[in-house]
Amino acid sequence: MLRARRGTARTIVGIMPELRSTDTVTGLLAEIADVGRDRQRGGYSRPVFSTAERDLTGWFIAHAQRRGLDVHTDLNGVIWASSGDLSSGESVVTGSHLDSVPGGGAFDGPLGICSALVAFDRLQQRGFTPLRPLSIAVFPEEEGSRFGVACLGSRLLTGAIDPDRARSLRDADGNTLAEVAAASGLDPRFLGQDDGTLAAVGTFLELHVEQGRGLVDLSKPVGIARSILGHGRWRITVEGQGNHAGSTLMADRRDPMVTAARVVVAVREAALAHPDSRATVGRLTPVPGGTNVIASSVTLWLDVRHPRHEIVATVVQAITTEAGRLAAEEGCRVTVAEESLSGTVQFPTGLRDMLSHTLPGSPLLDSGAGHDAGVLAARVESAMLFVRNPTGVSHSPEEQVEADDAEAGAIALADALQALLTRD
Amino acid sequence: MLRARRGTARTIVGIMPELRSTDTVTGLLAEIADVGRDRQRGGYSRPVFSTAERDLTGWFIAHAQRRGLDVHTDLNGVIWASSGDLSSGESVVTGSHLDSVPGGGAFDGPLGICSALVAFDRLQQRGFTPLRPLSIAVFPEEEGSRFGVACLGSRLLTGAIDPDRARSLRDADGNTLAEVAAASGLDPRFLGQDDGTLAAVGTFLELHVEQGRGLVDLSKPVGIARSILGHGRWRITVEGQGNHAGSTLMADRRDPMVTAARVVVAVREAALAHPDSRATVGRLTPVPGGTNVIASSVTLWLDVRHPRHEIVATVVQAITTEAGRLAAEEGCRVTVAEESLSGTVQFPTGLRDMLSHTLPGSPLLDSGAGHDAGVLAARVESAMLFVRNPTGVSHSPEEQVEADDAEAGAIALADALQALLTRD
Repeated sequence: MLRARRGTARTIVGIMPELRSTDTVTGLLAEIADVGRDRQRGGYSRPVFSTAERDLTGWFIAHAQRRGLDVHTDLNGVIWASSGDLSSGESVVTGSHLDSVPGGGAFDGPLGICSALVAFDRLQQRGFTPLRPLSIAVFPEEEGSRFGVACLGSRLLTGAIDPDRARSLRDADGNTLAEVAAASGLDPRFLGQDDGTLAAVGTFLELHVEQGRGLVDLSKPVGIARSILGHGRWRITVEGQGNHAGSTLMADRRDPMVTAARVVVAVREAALAHPDSRATVGRLTPVPGGTNVIASSVTLWLDVRHPRHEIVATVVQAITTEAGRLAAEEGCRVTVAEESLSGTVQFPTGLRDMLSHTLPGSPLLDSGAGHDAGVLAARVESAMLFVRNPTGVSHSPEEQVEADDAEAGAIALADALQALLTRD
Repeated sequence: MLRARRGTARTIVGIMPELRSTDTVTGLLAEIADVGRDRQRGGYSRPVFSTAERDLTGWFIAHAQRRGLDVHTDLNGVIWASSGDLSSGESVVTGSHLDSVPGGGAFDGPLGICSALVAFDRLQQRGFTPLRPLSIAVFPEEEGSRFGVACLGSRLLTGAIDPDRARSLRDADGNTLAEVAAASGLDPRFLGQDDGTLAAVGTFLELHVEQGRGLVDLSKPVGIARSILGHGRWRITVEGQGNHAGSTLMADRRDPMVTAARVVVAVREAALAHPDSRATVGRLTPVPGGTNVIASSVTLWLDVRHPRHEIVATVVQAITTEAGRLAAEEGCRVTVAEESLSGTVQFPTGLRDMLSHTLPGSPLLDSGAGHDAGVLAARVESAMLFVRNPTGVSHSPEEQVEADDAEAGAIALADALQALLTRD
């Protein structure tokens, strides 16, 4: 059993008989292939604290316990499955998330969790002497698809979001995080920065499906993260005059849908005007949302990213100014509220170099997508591995990973973890 | 009791003691003021076959029965409360609907039902000899806000919609009308044209809140409908490539939200290019609808109206052509599906003149909004009365009717019904 105790290095005992050491990443993914399927959108909808996500965390905990790992959930709902005493303060942690975007793919999140379990099994089989404990972590609400803030679990843990603000975040049904967390057995009063838990983490290494075409274009199965783009989300609300679609003359309208549509076009134009930036409106809700009703208000969510985070601010400023102009033209009112903002993350060079040495031939990649590893990087030494996605598509049922690449990813993760566990 | 039997004219018996002859329109509206309130959108959300709408129809039936009316629900879910034997084939019918748009006002629909009950009471008090029976009708899904087709009950009744198509209409949760109707006690096999029921209707007169500023500008409490604008609804679906909002370069995108937004702008432009037309997108749904997800498809609903229905077709053709061009530009695919189409309705001159004679000083109005009376007009002699709406706003919580105008409307309705019931 791979188990290190505080301050001591212990020999690997060997494979325990109840372990299914033949588990593969694709085999584990197949076990959860029916959880949270979305028949309307296609793919999976596994929002945090939903039945689907609870089924997945329950499934993970059973796998961790079968491997003899100690499982506990911290004050922010992060699940830790550990092979040793975490209070030694130098543990190596791998993991990812099990929640999904609405209608997401099978790999975004679960690939990292399944690879962590398989990597653990491989390390068991190898028999070596870890110098520190190993944990697998599952972070809640990585996607932010329920409460609007991505990486909410890791942000709370590291103090990157004010807990009062987090508690008052609302889902689409109007429930606050505080209410939903309480219903899920977390005490919302204790959400927030948790230095005790963080102190136990020496290094965090997250494996994730690649969400672009970097590895496809380079014909490589596994890559190493160099950086994560600066990234923010804003909620834009356009208020106009709700009215009847038939009896209201065009000249008498103050239609927030028309303004919102012009803002969507302005978002595209602002992104094109600033090379390397990405700006997206993927979510838009007219109120009340009837066919024969001029909307009274429209809310749209804006996602902006750039390798240099100061350009994110420039792009959003351009959109805000243009939105104000467009709203005034229609007699509407617009407000732009920041929901989250993360600077560009450069992963530490030393750790990157060590991974490059351990995984020769694995290219360095900049990630357009945000990850818990990017949030944790502010407090603990962090790194990431990416596994090739042949479609290059993510946040969609078309997201894909070949079986061979998935297993190659788990081996690469095992190799990297071994290097970290035995690093002087 | 105002009750006519087949082929015979009967004297009004007088007020029955259990009747609350002091009911006022505002008093009746106050009884239902808490049913179906929408805390999120404001106003009321009372979709057909919802708990709220069932509570309202139950409340109406209790009022009808307290007045000694015979109540039955026909094969299409229209509720008829009758004071005599309808098989005489010359009944006078008044009524409206109890369903609402999402976040609608208190008067659109219920004003006509409450006014009908109060008008019935007034006729009782007057004591005169009706030459034919009187009914109050409640039509289901007038707004089309659940299944997408406005005036669905009256369309089914009159054969204006193919029952197979109606049965397969779906609500936002994916339930078909057939399923929902069956769950509400209607046999979906029997939906469709019902000549037996129609044969009993001599004249239909609907009272409705005005949904524009016609009466406000003329300083009149009550008006008479001259026409209803030609009107159609279309469902426009734009399909693109769902993907990750962070890792997908702007150049690699086929984003249906951008195309949908350009279509919304094109709708506004097409309406402005054709004077007197009204074209609206009030409902728009991106799929999957995540903040950090480029949508894979976007559905938007288009509502177009014009005093001349051939112009409706011209406007929709212009929008369809432009939508195709815009979709091609983005590498998306677009489909435009007609959900409903109604020609311009001119209410019959003879009946209009009679109402003008009975209600001197009441102006003639063209209605931008569709109504069951407009659908029924294809099969039975129909007319409408409008009651002033001081805000001119409808399909919104801001819709308003002054108490004095509401009572004046009920008196006007009673006068008009008396004239119809005693017409040679």
